[in-house]
Amino acid sequence: MSNASVIIIGNEILSGRTLDQNANFIAKRCSKIGIFLEEVRIIPDVSKIITTSVKNLSKKYHNVFVTGGIGPTHDDITAKSVASAFKKKLVLNKIAKNLLENYYNNSNIKLNSSRMKMAYLPSRSTLILNPLTAAPGFKVKNVWVMAGVPKIMQSMFLTSVEPKLKKGKITHAMSVKVDKPEGDIAHILHEINMEFKTIDIGSYPYFTPPKAGTNIVFRSTDLIEIKKSLKKFCNILKSNDILFRIENNYSY
Amino acid sequence: MSNASVIIIGNEILSGRTLDQNANFIAKRCSKIGIFLEEVRIIPDVSKIITTSVKNLSKKYHNVFVTGGIGPTHDDITAKSVASAFKKKLVLNKIAKNLLENYYNNSNIKLNSSRMKMAYLPSRSTLILNPLTAAPGFKVKNVWVMAGVPKIMQSMFLTSVEPKLKKGKITHAMSVKVDKPEGDIAHILHEINMEFKTIDIGSYPYFTPPKAGTNIVFRSTDLIEIKKSLKKFCNILKSNDILFRIENNYSY
Repeated sequence: MSNASVIIIGNEILSGRTLDQNANFIAKRCSKIGIFLEEVRIIPDVSKIITTSVKNLSKKYHNVFVTGGIGPTHDDITAKSVASAFKKKLVLNKIAKNLLENYYNNSNIKLNSSRMKMAYLPSRSTLILNPLTAAPGFKVKNVWVMAGVPKIMQSMFLTSVEPKLKKGKITHAMSVKVDKPEGDIAHILHEINMEFKTIDIGSYPYFTPPKAGTNIVFRSTDLIEIKKSLKKFCNILKSNDILFRIENNYSY
Repeated sequence: MSNASVIIIGNEILSGRTLDQNANFIAKRCSKIGIFLEEVRIIPDVSKIITTSVKNLSKKYHNVFVTGGIGPTHDDITAKSVASAFKKKLVLNKIAKNLLENYYNNSNIKLNSSRMKMAYLPSRSTLILNPLTAAPGFKVKNVWVMAGVPKIMQSMFLTSVEPKLKKGKITHAMSVKVDKPEGDIAHILHEINMEFKTIDIGSYPYFTPPKAGTNIVFRSTDLIEIKKSLKKFCNILKSNDILFRIENNYSY
């Protein structure tokens, strides 16, 4: 099964101004196609940190998804930082240049030198197409670099990244909403966890005062085993007169 | 100025099931009290990874804020993992035990052995009080460990973490909403950026089709310098007949 990490570049996330939603989007898509997202890092707009993070995570994971910092302004330093992670130069990518020329010729916006900067990419990059605003992302080795604006990042990911990723076995999940705080059912969960070693059982308490309850999520690539463990868990709840509801199953 | 990092522990975040909001909350609070948040990591419920991450980030930053995995169930492995990062043992913390006994004696919930597990903390921990559900977080060295449930984490942070943090110079921010896509004003930003080296100028495009515009954020601990750079920027916009609006200033 292939794995991945995400690097979110952005002072605006670290200052708290913006709530990041890109990591969650990529996490969901990875779950849907059977890629195991193992780590997310949010780092500042500092070239050296971007370079080091990309270099380290690219060695550690099959895929690294990077978002942010590929626009036309002075704070867009991702392309040069990724280039330097792989000891590459920034070069004018002709296909990217054509994409920009076509897009801006058909609009009333001028393709000035600031915008042309977006066609300078690490040498031997593969383009990641941008269906919304033309300026492409790029892939170097196993590192996929996309825009930071969520709508653009999503359109890049869905049209030009996901179709090229190696799919794996999908991790299925089923969830049970239990009408008890988690301390009341911890011993039951422990028992199920010991019996079904291949199932990842997560316990997530919720509080809607005065009520406290717990969502239990069973995760595995083996749906039959999930159903077996879930059945056993629910039978124990029943025999203890604990109310619960099995939620619709979903794949992340 | 002291700095910090955040470690979010949770398979449910990495699977995409849950959108993390804890990092954003801590980021905002850090900005408010002049602590520079330099990195966020989201990692899975795997003891070895928790231990390594805590060990590494605790060396690198003044403060490490950890959320998640301190409840009563089998998947709550944060306390033992943090203990092992500092070669400490898990011991029954008497104050934590008292807190739990008081809380559960006053409720109709039983303090069973699963719940008592929450009083076993790394030796020589300082407690982080939990105003909502009693089970405390803890501090070892420069690592502050809090609950994963946002409401509980927030109440812990506000009442028992933030008052103890060393405050720094606050980073002020002012923001200008410009009625042009960022490619049109990149050269102006470049000019301002070269002149005001101490100001961190962020450019954040937005798209509400058919309109595209840019939010420009000026950040610095020096409010006078922010105002100077902002004034210069706005004057250039005016002389180019570009519409803009200065947003209220805020401190992150």
